[in-house]
Order: sequence, then structure tokens, then C-alpha cells
Amino acid sequence: MELGVYTFAEVAGGDAGRRLRELVEEMVLADEVGLDVFGVGEHHRRDFAVSAPVVTLAAGAARTRRIRLTSAVTVLSSDDPVRVFQAFATLDGISDGRAEIMAGRGSFIESFPLFGYDLEDYDELFAEKLELLLALRASERVSWSGRHRAPLDGLGVYPRPVQDPLPIWIAVGGTPGSVVRAARLGLALAVAIIGGAPERFVPLVDLYRDEARAAGHDRAALPVSINSHAYVADTSQRAADEFFRPYAAMMTRIGRERGWPPMTRAQYDQLRGPRGALVVGSPRRWRRRSSSSTSSSATTASSRR
Amino acid sequence: MELGVYTFAEVAGGDAGRRLRELVEEMVLADEVGLDVFGVGEHHRRDFAVSAPVVTLAAGAARTRRIRLTSAVTVLSSDDPVRVFQAFATLDGISDGRAEIMAGRGSFIESFPLFGYDLEDYDELFAEKLELLLALRASERVSWSGRHRAPLDGLGVYPRPVQDPLPIWIAVGGTPGSVVRAARLGLALAVAIIGGAPERFVPLVDLYRDEARAAGHDRAALPVSINSHAYVADTSQRAADEFFRPYAAMMTRIGRERGWPPMTRAQYDQLRGPRGALVVGSPRRWRRRSSSSTSSSATTASSRR
Repeated sequence: MELGVYTFAEVAGGDAGRRLRELVEEMVLADEVGLDVFGVGEHHRRDFAVSAPVVTLAAGAARTRRIRLTSAVTVLSSDDPVRVFQAFATLDGISDGRAEIMAGRGSFIESFPLFGYDLEDYDELFAEKLELLLALRASERVSWSGRHRAPLDGLGVYPRPVQDPLPIWIAVGGTPGSVVRAARLGLALAVAIIGGAPERFVPLVDLYRDEARAAGHDRAALPVSINSHAYVADTSQRAADEFFRPYAAMMTRIGRERGWPPMTRAQYDQLRGPRGALVVGSPRRWRRRSSSSTSSSATTASSRR
Repeated sequence: MELGVYTFAEVAGGDAGRRLRELVEEMVLADEVGLDVFGVGEHHRRDFAVSAPVVTLAAGAARTRRIRLTSAVTVLSSDDPVRVFQAFATLDGISDGRAEIMAGRGSFIESFPLFGYDLEDYDELFAEKLELLLALRASERVSWSGRHRAPLDGLGVYPRPVQDPLPIWIAVGGTPGSVVRAARLGLALAVAIIGGAPERFVPLVDLYRDEARAAGHDRAALPVSINSHAYVADTSQRAADEFFRPYAAMMTRIGRERGWPPMTRAQYDQLRGPRGALVVGSPRRWRRRSSSSTSSSATTASSRR
């Protein structure tokens, strides 16, 4: 099993520049303590510092040696697969083969109007752009045409990545169609478990494995990761108490945009229980892979096997 | 006067990943020896390692303290000003205020078919996208519409840069219209002197200053840079002899695509003369600002005042 952290780089106090520099230090620390992967989300909002994950990851690449670096996620639907591939191939070169792309349809929707896309094309945009991204990964020169991006007529796309193939994960929130797509294409699966008990996602992973097998893909080559909010302190009780206020504030603020009621302590305690989707615990529980653990910021924990 | 180097990161031997990692080390060295600026070009060709300058610069930002970091150039005509602004604002945050954008119409044209643009719109594309880029720099929320990019209806663009305003230079090859545009908009001017004597560019700089004054801009706030191919060795004669073969090979290869005849030693010696556009010299000449200079790779030297 691999263990890592993802972050959306929430901006406390409004200083995005400082938050970006802290983020680089967090990547350095994650590398030092032996985590396997560091992921950075893409958002187009004032309250998150990162709209260009790959730029931030490149800064981390220059100061780390071993840790893998991924977007979490790249909102592929509203981006250009050629630019995405070029930027991550560049990151792969700088990091000597430690780059990964996690592609998703997007949970937040600010990027659609910002880049001129229609939410009515939400799934078609993702399917078409993923097709092009995979073609660019497979061949230096690609001929392709689609509805939502200018055609390519055998043009070369550079630089080529160090890893062949450059790892591409599909991030899903719980939509069975997304899981089936990842399985049929033989792509790794990243499951976001933001609310609800992890058990509820077992059928989704079973579906993924069944579909992948049916499509003739080797299960061993298809890792699955789960991703949950996490907070670490000296004891589990202290972690739970410290984390409630900022976590509830964030979930309430974002929930307001989505029509959710404010988060209560009772809900929070249910989420963080032994079978809850919220990982709140003491560093001892995290020592399976790392020799030490000093991280105590709100992040998303990622386990991949 | 400020002194710096720009590079297109030519790939010798085809290993783009290694070249990208070397490029980061070159930025570290340039910072250590006291150069003022490091620039990285954007190309979409197998023979240059960088198609995503800002990703590469971010890696350099994480390992440098003082040097300014710029694209040289960002081919704005075939890019999305929103993505460009976001990526350079991110670089500005990571570097704590050392990012610059050098925007140009592009000397190489591979990016136009690759991103679905028509060379017939060469100048209109640049004018329109520059207008949007400047609007994004001026305001957090922008309403804008144009012919070549989806409209914005008061949407916020994040993160905001550390520097306000984020420096934007206009790169010109010698077109008077481009110089007048930079002057009227009050933007800094970067003149590429790839062939021909520098004297020939004096009228262009005079035109820039006259137009800037007429438009009411403060001349002191409008720096001019000149950019020429450069090579440094222990003596000027040795530099000239060592550099002839690789320089002529590159100019002949690229010239072939543009219908130029192969470069001869006679042409080369004319270019590199005391008034030539090719800077070939010994480190002593370069010690005006730097305490030491060990760089000896083919780059573009940039002087700004």
C-alpha cells in the first residue's frame, strides 16, 4: 500500500503567494518523512491558492527526490489536453519520472464559464478530452478530431515524458459510469470519499475490477486509491476536537453553495468514527510507512494499493 | 543596467528530460553568479525541450533566491490569456514576486495549427489576447469579449500575483507596429537582435520612446532590453572558434525551414564583430555585475536598462 496527501491549498487570510510557498515546503516535508505521493487540486476560486497545479508541483519537484507528484484533480473537461500533456511531460522531465495526472470531470464548476464551456456537455467534454489525452500519451504524432477542441493532423507534441506511459488516473466521486469508463480504458481509479462510510464504495470498486477483467485488462496493473479528508494530532481525541471547527466551517461554506445544511458536531463525529470517511488520528496510526510524521494540517489522505 | 540569459533549451541527443533538469541547474547557477534575469522560450518542436516555460521556471523558482524569471517568449497569440495569467501569478507567488511575462506573436509558427489558430489572424490574435491579459492584470474580476476566446462576464481569476502590476514585456523582432503597440500601452520593450547590427535597431527604440512620450507614459517606467545570441569562453578568439560550428549548424537547420542559405564563417565573423549582434567574448567582459561567471553554454544574453 502507498500513502500520501492531497491538498487544495486553502487560503487562510487571503495571502495566496505565502500559501503557495508553504505548499512547496509541505512537499519537501512529505518527501522527507517518506510519503509516497503528494497531490494538488485545481480550483478557480479566491479561497484556494492553486489554479495551476502543475506549476506548483514543478516547484516541489525541484526540491524533492523520491515522492510522486500528481494533480488532484486536473479538471480535464475545461482544459486543453495538448497543454495538459505538455505541462505534465515537462514535470515528468524535471522530476525524472515522478509525475502523474489525475483527471476528473470536476467537483467545483467555476472552470466551465471561465474557459467557455457549457455544463450541459459535462460528460461529453470529459470523454472526448480523455480520448485525446490518451492518444497524445500513446504517440508522438497524433491525428484526431472532436467537437470541443481543434483537430490535430499528425502534429508532434513535445516534450515526451520520461515515463512511458505517463501515469493517468481517473478520479471519480461515485458515478458508476465514470468507474466503468476507467475500467474499460485500463486506467487507474481514484475514489474520492468526502462523505459517507467507505463501505458504501466497495460495490464501486467491485464494479471497476469486474469491468476491467471483462475488458481484458490485468488487475495488477490497475491500482485503486481512496481519498478522504484527514487531520493528524498527538491523540485522536485532540485531533477530533481541533479539527471540528475549521472542517465544519469549510464544509458549511462550500455546502452553502450546494444547498447543504450547516455541518453539526454530531454529523462530524459520525463521519470520523472508526468506519467514517474522515481520517482523524494520532501520528502512531500513520507510522506504517513513514519514519516520522509531523504533518498536522488539513489535507486529504490517499491510500493506494 | 541589468544582465541576464535566455535559453530555448535546445535538446542535444534527444533527451528532453535530462535537458529540463540541466535547465534548472542553469537557473541555480545564474542566480548564484548574480545575473538579474533568466528567461526560457516556448517552442513546440522536438529540438527544443520547453513547450511550457512557466512549469520550468517554477522549478527554478524553488531553488533560487534573487534572480527574476521570465518567459522568452510566451506565444500569447496561440494561448489562453486566463491560463497564462494564472500560471504566471502562481510563479509569482512561488518566487515571492520574481515572475515576468514576455509576450510575443511568435517567431516559430508550430503553435498555431497545434492549438487551432489561423496564421491569417496573426496580429489580431495577439492584439486581442494582450488586451485580455492586461485586463486580468488590472482587475480581479473581468468582463470582456472578443473574437478568439470565450467571453468573461465578471468572473474572478486567481491566484492574484504578488507584484502589482505583474511585469509584462512585449517582445518584438523588428516590426514597427509592434513597437508602437508596446509604447502606447505603456509596456516594457524586449528587442530580439538575432541578425544584423544593433545600430539598425536604434530607430526602433527611438520610435518606442517617442510614442510612449506622446501617449503620456513615463519613460523611466518603460525599460528596453536587447537580446542577442551569446557564447562565453576564456578568450574572445576561443569563444568565436568554439561557437562557430554549433551556432552555424543551428542557424542553418532553422534557416532551411525559412528559406535562408547556410551560414558561412564570413557571415558569422561579421555578426560577431565589435558591432555585431552576436555576443562572443571572455568572462572579463561580463564582470560588470557578476562576481564570477562560469557559464559557457549557447544562450541569449539580455541587457535591460
